[in-house]
Amino acid sequence: MIVCASPEILPEHQHKLEDASGQRVLVYRSLDEIPEDIASHTDILIMYGGNLSYPKGTKLSIARFTRLEWVHFLTIAINQPLTDELRTRSLLVTNSTGIQAASMSEYVLASMLYFEKDFHRYSALKREKRWDRSVSMGELTNREVLIFGTGSIGTAIARTLKPFRVRLTGVNTTGKPVEPFDMTLTTAQGVERLSSADYVVSIIPDTPDTDHLFGRDNLLRMKKEAVFINVGRGNVLDEPALAELLNAGRLKGAALDVFREEPPAEDNPLWTSDNLILTPHMSAKSTHYIDSCLDIFIHNLKVQREGKPADELINVIRTDSL
Amino acid sequence: MIVCASPEILPEHQHKLEDASGQRVLVYRSLDEIPEDIASHTDILIMYGGNLSYPKGTKLSIARFTRLEWVHFLTIAINQPLTDELRTRSLLVTNSTGIQAASMSEYVLASMLYFEKDFHRYSALKREKRWDRSVSMGELTNREVLIFGTGSIGTAIARTLKPFRVRLTGVNTTGKPVEPFDMTLTTAQGVERLSSADYVVSIIPDTPDTDHLFGRDNLLRMKKEAVFINVGRGNVLDEPALAELLNAGRLKGAALDVFREEPPAEDNPLWTSDNLILTPHMSAKSTHYIDSCLDIFIHNLKVQREGKPADELINVIRTDSL
Repeated sequence: MIVCASPEILPEHQHKLEDASGQRVLVYRSLDEIPEDIASHTDILIMYGGNLSYPKGTKLSIARFTRLEWVHFLTIAINQPLTDELRTRSLLVTNSTGIQAASMSEYVLASMLYFEKDFHRYSALKREKRWDRSVSMGELTNREVLIFGTGSIGTAIARTLKPFRVRLTGVNTTGKPVEPFDMTLTTAQGVERLSSADYVVSIIPDTPDTDHLFGRDNLLRMKKEAVFINVGRGNVLDEPALAELLNAGRLKGAALDVFREEPPAEDNPLWTSDNLILTPHMSAKSTHYIDSCLDIFIHNLKVQREGKPADELINVIRTDSL
Repeated sequence: MIVCASPEILPEHQHKLEDASGQRVLVYRSLDEIPEDIASHTDILIMYGGNLSYPKGTKLSIARFTRLEWVHFLTIAINQPLTDELRTRSLLVTNSTGIQAASMSEYVLASMLYFEKDFHRYSALKREKRWDRSVSMGELTNREVLIFGTGSIGTAIARTLKPFRVRLTGVNTTGKPVEPFDMTLTTAQGVERLSSADYVVSIIPDTPDTDHLFGRDNLLRMKKEAVFINVGRGNVLDEPALAELLNAGRLKGAALDVFREEPPAEDNPLWTSDNLILTPHMSAKSTHYIDSCLDIFIHNLKVQREGKPADELINVIRTDSL
């Protein structure tokens, strides 16, 4: 029996799962709403992966799902450890990573075009009822885009930007070449390169090495006409320094979807910064999110049903590594 | 001798022309600044094409350019008739049409992504220091885009949108199929189709037939969540009706780069409309504009220099049709 535990699974999603699986799919809002007799007959569970470490005996524990064979998480990454009990049961565990690439790429492009076409400036002119044709709009053609992070999202962003005839430079720890970047640099070389980039995009993970990578000194390496975009993790940025540079007109603009503290504190200067697109960690979460998560699940379901080799399964989490 | 008459020809453009032609290029701010002895030795003139009907004997007249062989206009279209004198001299006349396609396509995509990613809403939330994750961002995937006008710009817009997995429907007078549209409709069918489109883009010319095509009734056919974008001509739109629907939340948004009267009168309700991107007829005019105009000129110069067939010349205006 396939059971879903999430308020985001709508009737249309339920029908999609039923059509693909050929069996009835039950939908609950959360794990603790699933009655005992359903829990004990659940083969496959579809849910968010926020916290799986609830103690045995509680309704949130996975332990009461005695027949469980497969958990599919509606989550891109699993941040928290699975319980020992779950790990030793040799379940199939899959997540939904990869689905965020299209949405995040669109977010980055949306931010770039917003500044390229001066929508911020024209919005101010409209308020003053001013018709000012003195400044030509920009065009992405020939712009240099420096993307810190050449993993699945970084390369998806690069592929999205490619048709706009931009110059694409990728940055990763070793500088190893990655398609479709025109050039790839090490982190140290990437920092040097900040001075020539028109757009700097950060999609690197939160590690001690990346902390404050975009501190005041490195932000000051950027051109006055450049734009900084962060869709990765908030720890990389010195937020007060960016706010100060934006307000001083020392950078053209910025788009931030992630922050050191979420939500940012009320006195965080970013709230009142000029030329800043500030969004609440939403770039990965489009209206297609759940649909795309289920596409991954359905792909794997077909691989199993049709007896295909296990290496055709996608997004499998090695539970012994969690 | 190559002579340019425009304040927009910068030293970098002059050098580009000199490199390509192998001869000295003189640059003046306007036609009437060109001295007689230069005018009488000019073989090729590069200028805007606003008005060529100045009477003989004035410094703005082409008549004093007695040796002239070729006029290249830095203009997309030539709206005004050439003088009889110019027509009978069998000059080569070329313009710069086509160069606006990339910039205008970016403008349309910028507007679509602006509304898809709810930048307007997040800008308002930022002012209130509010972190609201309750509404997922949209994604272009599977959106229906209805483009009125399938000429060179309409198809360039369609090609730009294609990689975003949108459904592309084109509208032209006869409904003839045009690449890369998934489907093409007649104008009457296109009007019917307004009810299912997520984005309606107008890039049709100003003719009696197109006047008020997007009047109140047809705007009301559109979905409440749809966005209207006009980069063609202002005559197609009932501006007060659009302003009223935007303010009532009856449409998600609009982006207008062209207007019935330019600039719009101070009491035009569009100036104060909600959810409207209003730009001063700039979508075609990017920072790459002059550079791209000169690329067309240089292409034709090479065709002539290398003695290639005349049909390899591009953007030639049949002067007998003007």
